[in-house]
Amino acid sequence: MSRRVTGTEIEKMIQLLAKMPGLGPRSARRAALYLINNREKIMAPLADALADAYQKVSVCSTCGNVDTRNPCTLCNDKGRDQSMICVVEEAGDLWALERASATTGLYHVLGGTLSAIEGIRPQDLNIEQLVDRARGETVSEVVIAVNATIDGQTTAHYITEQLKDCNVAISRLAHGVPVGGELDYLDEGTLAAAIKARRPF
Amino acid sequence: MSRRVTGTEIEKMIQLLAKMPGLGPRSARRAALYLINNREKIMAPLADALADAYQKVSVCSTCGNVDTRNPCTLCNDKGRDQSMICVVEEAGDLWALERASATTGLYHVLGGTLSAIEGIRPQDLNIEQLVDRARGETVSEVVIAVNATIDGQTTAHYITEQLKDCNVAISRLAHGVPVGGELDYLDEGTLAAAIKARRPF
Repeated sequence: MSRRVTGTEIEKMIQLLAKMPGLGPRSARRAALYLINNREKIMAPLADALADAYQKVSVCSTCGNVDTRNPCTLCNDKGRDQSMICVVEEAGDLWALERASATTGLYHVLGGTLSAIEGIRPQDLNIEQLVDRARGETVSEVVIAVNATIDGQTTAHYITEQLKDCNVAISRLAHGVPVGGELDYLDEGTLAAAIKARRPF
Repeated sequence: MSRRVTGTEIEKMIQLLAKMPGLGPRSARRAALYLINNREKIMAPLADALADAYQKVSVCSTCGNVDTRNPCTLCNDKGRDQSMICVVEEAGDLWALERASATTGLYHVLGGTLSAIEGIRPQDLNIEQLVDRARGETVSEVVIAVNATIDGQTTAHYITEQLKDCNVAISRLAHGVPVGGELDYLDEGTLAAAIKARRPF
């Protein structure tokens, strides 16, 4: 707001809300009004939840996931398949795979990809720890589930190289037609990959 | 998430974020990840700002606006035109008028509109206080800036009735073509109002 309309506390709250992904200045004002109108039901619990999460969130010392426990909820879950590690770039990718119930194995969060442009080197990522885990006796397979981008694939190749002395099978996600996808709208690279990896009907 | 992926603190934060307008379950997860990845810069300040605003926000005893001061920032501003009161439904309408720098006068927030369906009666709204203010010596005009909805107009008529013994001019917002609007897309009611209220060129 150009002129001073509210106290500094409300303005500060709006400014911070506007920085969140999915909220701009306009929707941040709307969210702030909603919070103000729901002080007891939403605003106070959200303030508590944020402060609580802020104090407790840490990076899992085993897999690099973010959680309020260390080792994280997934590393602690003895019901998961301890023989498989799924390597992802960010915690968000891990959440996405969990939503899809895509694997019952463990995870390893790299914290990004190698990038010459952004100057991200192997030692900036959580790779050394992955090699240590892959040397462990229980692990028999590492699935590299990085994004299908150039930086992601570069990282995948680097990791494969690092893991070659470990006694584990290394696999990657399948490329192909997304479920529900229409051929007419897909790029040539995906179509070529889908034909190449065709399966008997 | 169907299965347990994170600690309860993060899940609670996501659930609360998902209740905000403009954020659904998916974007709430994205926002939560963003907050977790920006713990120091956004998460902690936002938690503080929310707790701060929660403790300090109150309804202005003069005009019904929500602010961290009482009387609110606008009622306290002696540079504003003390002779005019602009009556709005919600604090959000006040913010919108302030963004447009539409008036330099004072405001009065009703807290809603009369509604037979929702059972909102005159005593549920901040109307009595408005009549008291309109009786004050400094006030010479009341602009009724409620929404152009049926409930809004019903409320406007009721307020006009209540103010008839006060020595103030009563006005309402002009109806007409929105600035930038195209006639082809406007409804008949707006066009008829715009013709009726035509102005010399």
